[in-house]
Amino acid sequence: MKVHDLGERALITRISKLLPHGVVLGAGEDDCAVLDWNGDEYLLMTTDMLHQRTDFPDEMTPWQMGWMSIAVSLSDVAAMGGKPFALVAAMGLPRDTDVGFVDGMVEGMNACAEKFGVSIVGGDTDEHDELTIVCTVLGRVKKDGLLRRSGANVGDMVCVTGELGTAEAGLQALSREIPQNSKKRLTKKLFEPQPRVNEGIALSESGVVTSMMDISDGLALSLHDMSKASSVGFLIYGDKLPVLDEVKVISSGLNLPLYGAGDFELLFTIKPNALGRARKACQFTVIGEVTHGDILIKKDGLTEKIEARGYEHFICVSNQSTQG
Amino acid sequence: MKVHDLGERALITRISKLLPHGVVLGAGEDDCAVLDWNGDEYLLMTTDMLHQRTDFPDEMTPWQMGWMSIAVSLSDVAAMGGKPFALVAAMGLPRDTDVGFVDGMVEGMNACAEKFGVSIVGGDTDEHDELTIVCTVLGRVKKDGLLRRSGANVGDMVCVTGELGTAEAGLQALSREIPQNSKKRLTKKLFEPQPRVNEGIALSESGVVTSMMDISDGLALSLHDMSKASSVGFLIYGDKLPVLDEVKVISSGLNLPLYGAGDFELLFTIKPNALGRARKACQFTVIGEVTHGDILIKKDGLTEKIEARGYEHFICVSNQSTQG
Repeated sequence: MKVHDLGERALITRISKLLPHGVVLGAGEDDCAVLDWNGDEYLLMTTDMLHQRTDFPDEMTPWQMGWMSIAVSLSDVAAMGGKPFALVAAMGLPRDTDVGFVDGMVEGMNACAEKFGVSIVGGDTDEHDELTIVCTVLGRVKKDGLLRRSGANVGDMVCVTGELGTAEAGLQALSREIPQNSKKRLTKKLFEPQPRVNEGIALSESGVVTSMMDISDGLALSLHDMSKASSVGFLIYGDKLPVLDEVKVISSGLNLPLYGAGDFELLFTIKPNALGRARKACQFTVIGEVTHGDILIKKDGLTEKIEARGYEHFICVSNQSTQG
Repeated sequence: MKVHDLGERALITRISKLLPHGVVLGAGEDDCAVLDWNGDEYLLMTTDMLHQRTDFPDEMTPWQMGWMSIAVSLSDVAAMGGKPFALVAAMGLPRDTDVGFVDGMVEGMNACAEKFGVSIVGGDTDEHDELTIVCTVLGRVKKDGLLRRSGANVGDMVCVTGELGTAEAGLQALSREIPQNSKKRLTKKLFEPQPRVNEGIALSESGVVTSMMDISDGLALSLHDMSKASSVGFLIYGDKLPVLDEVKVISSGLNLPLYGAGDFELLFTIKPNALGRARKACQFTVIGEVTHGDILIKKDGLTEKIEARGYEHFICVSNQSTQG
């Protein structure tokens, strides 16, 4: 059997089973590994591999490639309520890469790290046929402030920061005839994602969030992940999903906001009647409620299942069966 | 200018200059980044990118590829006297990689991690044209036990663990007609390097080591790095260099032990008259002394400069000028 027969998620599950469990969380169960270092804080650790062909469209500048490489890992720390503080970056560079290109990339990395108060403390360079960047970020979080995918309870409200489907719409906009202004705004959102670091910390400190993760794989897959971790279902309000007008220009249905990947927004659940306290932490939209049942969406009086599909490496068109 | 015109070391220097300095050590000055987390310990962090074409000869098994990916980073933690405790691994895999190959690789990773008491706590998988593994390791070390490249003083003894030139001889053995037993022993040493984790910790605890690093880039380049960091020179005793008999079968001169790369041994300096205490920590060979002057080697009554050359990515034959 080949890895593309298996798919990324099944591969991660298979790998995890080969490893003994010696930490609070095993590999692949949350956005970061959680290490019980000492004192009243956990150390969070996450690594992400990006490379030219699948992660950096031709239209991206070196600066944006650098920015994105850092942003995706910061989002993982944000997703657990942590404060990222240090990172290392390994870069595989083709021999004939222009040094100015590397400078731009490093400046983009540094701009993202600086914006979120993170130090770039080391790295590695290697010769490689294809540009490859692997960023590993450390974060810290008070033990009682750690937010995981598990923890959602029936009756909680389901919320997201920002808007949905933006990155996927940006990707589609690259090859579509749409007004230049819309294209520019969408591709900027795609190429320069803003990890919700401050929002994640504030939500953790609010004390009313019961579970959290980022939606980089898309809202649908993330709901399925959270459902599995928390052993709950969801009812999503289709007419409440926050979507930018530019995204509606690309596609007016629910396909982009539900199944589009690459948005680094936070999906979280809050205790019933805690809306006021949560609102003090950051801006967000209530998009549904936690239930006993399946993972459903209600729109125009119709209720249907949300499929467990989105973006997966190794599988171009997902062959996963619908869960929940 | 292209990165291969610049070479790996100059590229790292260039990148470091683009980054602000917010930590105890900047990028590229020691084997690990050193983070002042809290309490009486430092947190060490190091990342290494390995890939098929340059790091994994065809003769390697998947298990050995996994082992090596972990071992090279553990060596960096060992080089500072630290105890590695956690790691994440990012794997870029070609679509048609056999799942059994991945299993073997993960088992090799796990064997190396377990041997040295390290937990694999997370990772990432990605589709990639060429097999690529990036391992990031965390270590911890008592603040007063941290060993750096700086710290060597004139009059100190220069020492190494194990033997020199073994890995490079193993690489050359792959394409040479030599007795099967020798070939087998050399390639095993090349493919399954043993990071000097326990030796590094014991040397740190001995209290008599003044500077330390690993010699993965070769003894010559490492001496130049340590010379620069400590502002000292070295006189190396050519007839004292520890070399396996099998290595002498490949080449009888000093080229392999001085300039061969890929040995994960420790190079360190100890205080004069502290040999007895150091010997209680681990086995090693005294190979020279710290001086005011150049980086020299004495053999058969002749003294000559040790060149600053070894293995560098991007440059096949080094074009660096001789330093020191």
